[in-house]
Amino acid sequence: MPDDATIIANLQALSGLAAFNAWLGIEITAAKWGEVEIQLKWRPEFGQYNGYLHASIVGGLIDTACGFAGTTVTKNLLASQFSIRCLRPAVAEVFVAKGRVVKPGSRQIFTSAELYGLGVPDKPFAVGDAILVPMD
Amino acid sequence: MPDDATIIANLQALSGLAAFNAWLGIEITAAKWGEVEIQLKWRPEFGQYNGYLHASIVGGLIDTACGFAGTTVTKNLLASQFSIRCLRPAVAEVFVAKGRVVKPGSRQIFTSAELYGLGVPDKPFAVGDAILVPMD
Amino acid sequence: MPDDATIIANLQALSGLAAFNAWLGIEITAAKWGEVEIQLKWRPEFGQYNGYLHASIVGGLIDTACGFAGTTVTKNLLASQFSIRCLRPAVAEVFVAKGRVVKPGSRQIFTSAELYGLGVPDKPFAVGDAILVPMD
Amino acid sequence: MPDDATIIANLQALSGLAAFNAWLGIEITAAKWGEVEIQLKWRPEFGQYNGYLHASIVGGLIDTACGFAGTTVTKNLLASQFSIRCLRPAVAEVFVAKGRVVKPGSRQIFTSAELYGLGVPDKPFAVGDAILVPMD
Repeated sequence: MPDDATIIANLQALSGLAAFNAWLGIEITAAKWGEVEIQLKWRPEFGQYNGYLHASIVGGLIDTACGFAGTTVTKNLLASQFSIRCLRPAVAEVFVAKGRVVKPGSRQIFTSAELYGLGVPDKPFAVGDAILVPMD
Repeated sequence: MPDDATIIANLQALSGLAAFNAWLGIEITAAKWGEVEIQLKWRPEFGQYNGYLHASIVGGLIDTACGFAGTTVTKNLLASQFSIRCLRPAVAEVFVAKGRVVKPGSRQIFTSAELYGLGVPDKPFAVGDAILVPMD
Repeated sequence: MPDDATIIANLQALSGLAAFNAWLGIEITAAKWGEVEIQLKWRPEFGQYNGYLHASIVGGLIDTACGFAGTTVTKNLLASQFSIRCLRPAVAEVFVAKGRVVKPGSRQIFTSAELYGLGVPDKPFAVGDAILVPMD
Repeated sequence: MPDDATIIANLQALSGLAAFNAWLGIEITAAKWGEVEIQLKWRPEFGQYNGYLHASIVGGLIDTACGFAGTTVTKNLLASQFSIRCLRPAVAEVFVAKGRVVKPGSRQIFTSAELYGLGVPDKPFAVGDAILVPMD
């Protein structure tokens, strides 16, 4: 099994291949088997009407943290379903999404994640889950 | 009740106020009470690893179509929950998301939407639903 | 492909094997490839605090209609995820749940269903969806 | 604020008013502000085709644990949405569902719960979440 620094480097390289992740500027800040943390620095073009983080990006960070957590366990996954609960308006200088594998499997990987402001993990903006399946 | 052209113009103005919608380039292409269609032209920066439309944007288009459909019924809504089923890889020149109000209410508006390629509504890439609540 | 009467008879036999379905008294009232309708006659022991149909049974009827619809397409399925939106209190003499396959697949079958009172399909009590996977 | 024994007694009385909970035989085994544990002894009539706990009851126990957790915070709640991830076939002599409030609010209470066999909390059969809203 690769060490954590290698997992981080591999995920960062993978993230760079996804054009939208590159535009966002997603950084992998921690990773081990079954668990990944990503960060995103706020930019005004991420906003919705009220200047909060847009639901697309709220969902996208949770889905991405889930997907990367799954990728530490099995390669070449696609999300088949994801679900987001928006608990509070998402406003921060730096957003953190932490994903984990809830149940690995050969045909489905269950994952969950939460999104919060850097340093404030106990006041999540949103929580969610994703079911990942291996690609053909 | 405003006519459909006015609903479209109002939604397009509202969408322009959301910085992320403006970056995406979302267009309102049809609207009436309880039902809205939006379109998005593909650009390479919307891609994930395989060049399919990124899950953030799949989810975002469905959530946005749901939100706009809700907005034809009640103003100043926020999504409290949304859920996305990814049926097929999303690849198209022009994406269409069609949202509708399933059940309006004073405290919660239930909505659903599907995402497909222009002209191919019977092969949706994704379907989803959102619960919207009026803001304080 | 079996005719519709055979599909109904097979599903009714299958339902009888599930002890909880037998206790409920679920009846298969229509079926064809990818689509199944079930009915349940109200009994007081199905109630929650207010005498509405209990959420367990609301969810169970939707999940069962989804599962039977999937079973017309592929055998030996288990639900891996299901999600229920409760639109209105569920009160009726006879409940009808109508399920359909949204997207069949070899590893996942996407389905959805709605629950309503007999004769009132346009005022659903609840709508929902399930992802079904073949058993090992 | 009532003490925990009073919370348990009140919830047990409430549960007894719900005919379906009474038929199931749900017991409140622990409760405090924002958190409730319930138990159910297996009976054969709870089974699906394979003799596992029926998805209706899997979902119902999670929804009930969520609802009771919410009830420690706000009275007269109804579930507006619930979602269940079925991780493993549910087989046990005694089932335990543990629910908690994730985010209380005046208009929506976000809750989550997991279901497992007595003494085996680290191998949950299912996890889920519910959004609860105060009744009119």
